Amino acid sequence: MTSSLNKTHLNALKTIVGEENLCVDFPHLSAYSFDSTRLERIPECVIFPRNEEEIIEIVRYANLHRIPITPRGAGSGMSGGSINSGIILALQKHLNQIIEFDEDNLCVIAQPGLINQHLNHFLKPYGLFFAPDPASSAFSTIGGNIAENAGGMSAVKYGVSKDNILAMRAVLGNGEVISIGHKTYKDVAGYDLLGLMCGSEGTLGIITELTLKLRAIPKYSTSLLLCFEKIDELARLSNEILKRGIVPYAMEFLDSLIIQALNHRYQIYPPQASCVLIIKLTSNTQAGLLEEIEEIKQLALGCILFQQAQNQEEEEKIWFGRKNASQANSFYGVKKLNEDITLPRSQIVNFLHHTQEIGKKYGFCIPCFGHIGDGNIHTNVMLKDLKDLDKGYEAVRELFEIVISLGGTLSGEHGIGLTKASFMPLAFSSSHLELFKQIKKVFDPNAILNPHKMLKEV
Amino acid sequence: MTSSLNKTHLNALKTIVGEENLCVDFPHLSAYSFDSTRLERIPECVIFPRNEEEIIEIVRYANLHRIPITPRGAGSGMSGGSINSGIILALQKHLNQIIEFDEDNLCVIAQPGLINQHLNHFLKPYGLFFAPDPASSAFSTIGGNIAENAGGMSAVKYGVSKDNILAMRAVLGNGEVISIGHKTYKDVAGYDLLGLMCGSEGTLGIITELTLKLRAIPKYSTSLLLCFEKIDELARLSNEILKRGIVPYAMEFLDSLIIQALNHRYQIYPPQASCVLIIKLTSNTQAGLLEEIEEIKQLALGCILFQQAQNQEEEEKIWFGRKNASQANSFYGVKKLNEDITLPRSQIVNFLHHTQEIGKKYGFCIPCFGHIGDGNIHTNVMLKDLKDLDKGYEAVRELFEIVISLGGTLSGEHGIGLTKASFMPLAFSSSHLELFKQIKKVFDPNAILNPHKMLKEV
Repeated sequence: MTSSLNKTHLNALKTIVGEENLCVDFPHLSAYSFDSTRLERIPECVIFPRNEEEIIEIVRYANLHRIPITPRGAGSGMSGGSINSGIILALQKHLNQIIEFDEDNLCVIAQPGLINQHLNHFLKPYGLFFAPDPASSAFSTIGGNIAENAGGMSAVKYGVSKDNILAMRAVLGNGEVISIGHKTYKDVAGYDLLGLMCGSEGTLGIITELTLKLRAIPKYSTSLLLCFEKIDELARLSNEILKRGIVPYAMEFLDSLIIQALNHRYQIYPPQASCVLIIKLTSNTQAGLLEEIEEIKQLALGCILFQQAQNQEEEEKIWFGRKNASQANSFYGVKKLNEDITLPRSQIVNFLHHTQEIGKKYGFCIPCFGHIGDGNIHTNVMLKDLKDLDKGYEAVRELFEIVISLGGTLSGEHGIGLTKASFMPLAFSSSHLELFKQIKKVFDPNAILNPHKMLKEV
Repeated sequence: MTSSLNKTHLNALKTIVGEENLCVDFPHLSAYSFDSTRLERIPECVIFPRNEEEIIEIVRYANLHRIPITPRGAGSGMSGGSINSGIILALQKHLNQIIEFDEDNLCVIAQPGLINQHLNHFLKPYGLFFAPDPASSAFSTIGGNIAENAGGMSAVKYGVSKDNILAMRAVLGNGEVISIGHKTYKDVAGYDLLGLMCGSEGTLGIITELTLKLRAIPKYSTSLLLCFEKIDELARLSNEILKRGIVPYAMEFLDSLIIQALNHRYQIYPPQASCVLIIKLTSNTQAGLLEEIEEIKQLALGCILFQQAQNQEEEEKIWFGRKNASQANSFYGVKKLNEDITLPRSQIVNFLHHTQEIGKKYGFCIPCFGHIGDGNIHTNVMLKDLKDLDKGYEAVRELFEIVISLGGTLSGEHGIGLTKASFMPLAFSSSHLELFKQIKKVFDPNAILNPHKMLKEV
């Protein structure tokens, strides 16, 4: 593939978007060369398209000349999905609007560069919300959320981004635009291309419009903090809660290393606590909420501390540890190799034991926390010295091997991107990978869309 | 494609499955030549495979010799998905078992020929259930449910079949087997092939194993009957309920023609009622249920009759009309052309007016009923005389045109199959259809799997 953009290319692209919307200066190239992974890929130009027509023209041009083109939202991704060589198509600058708010059909049509939290600020007065709440929601875009199939704490109740979308428009690799889905809550006509596009990490098409499912903000909510001496008891309780049909808005846990790091600085948990469960419950009825709290209290046999937030301040206090968990990792090292593996819930305890063993073997601390309600655990291999990086990656590979052997998956919400592409053969058979490659070819015959992501070879 | 099976083929296939599991006698061919559409396609042989290995061998053989092969569950489909020429692979006889019940991970692994209701009978003592409840659940198989992406009344709360599956194994057109998904509630690694396979109507692969999501049976439930003089008021209420965050287990409606037919025989609704709303509410808490009922009562301004079931008998009485709605159509003719179109909910009233006009234009009654909570309406073009069949199909085409113009879709739960394949170009652009064809080719290069379904040409 020819990936170098010459002057003729740049001039042709400028004709499409206007001089002011194409940048090749170092500050721009640099600003668009990284994401939350801290990997770096310097693009050759950054383009800020103003509408779908311009995107179609750009993609047609790129396809004709085999120029790599990578859509980008806020660049907050955790797997390198939005960095690449060639053209970066930066969608957040001009394509960040709500196009239509349709209260009757409980949906909103929006441009991909709209920030997740901006959408929810807009919706709040109507008592509605868009459920996916990645930790980045204050700055990540809905286009990026859908492209990476972002999750968040609310996924235990509302699923990942894919479960919260009704329709999209997207430009394929050949510059053709397709409209997938409708403002309908059921649609079984034809193959499910909507699901296919969600989580495809910009490799199958460039999203130009999204129709998102909205939900009523639950009227009542509260949060619970439960401390345990044994992780088995915490895991048992979280399974039991779900088995009883209580589906929390969020159900999160912190392991002993995270607790130790948090206590070192803030002394927030009892010293004998080896793990913490934090639950947010929501309900449309106050009585319903109270009954659920009572049921959880009855079930929480091995718990050494049970707190229920009585007001906003107490709720924030309960969530303080979880919200600072990621940061707390720095207690254990200067470099974090963080993954978002997902397991059958019954295997979580088993996996955490394996993680400790791997940590011991390599001499790293591997604090874990995250979404125990849906089995999505954030594992953090902490390096004290950057020279241990290779050893760190070996430990990560071993973690992935354990995850796969326990029936889990490489990613629950961050996507594969660059960081996990080399682990794909661990998780998928060669037939399966071949299907992925063929599908990629159907949507993007010349492999210009975000090349080398998810699948290293294409 | 060579579709005729000669003696050599039959002998080779018998070697795989045993003589007793391959039938070419007329009674078998006849029994497997129809489904609920009453269309007829006589196969050349019916095979009852005993395990996945046999399916792999049969598909390899069929692929080598370009013999059409169509998987079939109970043959209860509403769009002709399970009838075809060539080989019918009848999965219900030997592949109807629960392989594993995993209570901790709230899932079950089962063979495709397991009957939906058999699964739910098994799960009941554990307080769990599999949510999709097509009207055929007493006899349809879970493999068929997933292949057609079946819905049912509970879809307003729990989605269609696709939303209730975690993993599957399937044999592709070249005889390779792939395992898609895990016992995890989140999985964003790779393209979403699980969604692609669901609703693919046996055209992309033959499902050999399913891992299904289970849920806790809600502890409390009740049903409400509301009669209205005006459909606008019924539609307004149903939208308002959802907007408030009340998500019923089922929310169904009957139009004036259905009411008239039911009243003619059973006198169950007040004579001034022109439409009926039936709601089933479920909750984990009794107090929560009572609050929701009260809220609906407050919202139901234009309602001329509001009944709440006080016991099982009253609940059955409330549902009697809905359960007999399909049958009641026969009041208006001898032949029913029934569709399962789906609309943005805001367009339902508009659509019903159009339906009446189309009925007048062609001289047919077109009673409508169904899942107003998710916009999935069963339209029934009733013919008094079979000689009007062509005119009937014209009316159906006009209905579909209206649906598409109002932003709806051809099918909410029955699938496309044979009956709607010719309408696909109404609903999808040529680029979109081309993607479908290319995807089909990726999974089934020689187009042996259930040919001519969904897409007429392949």
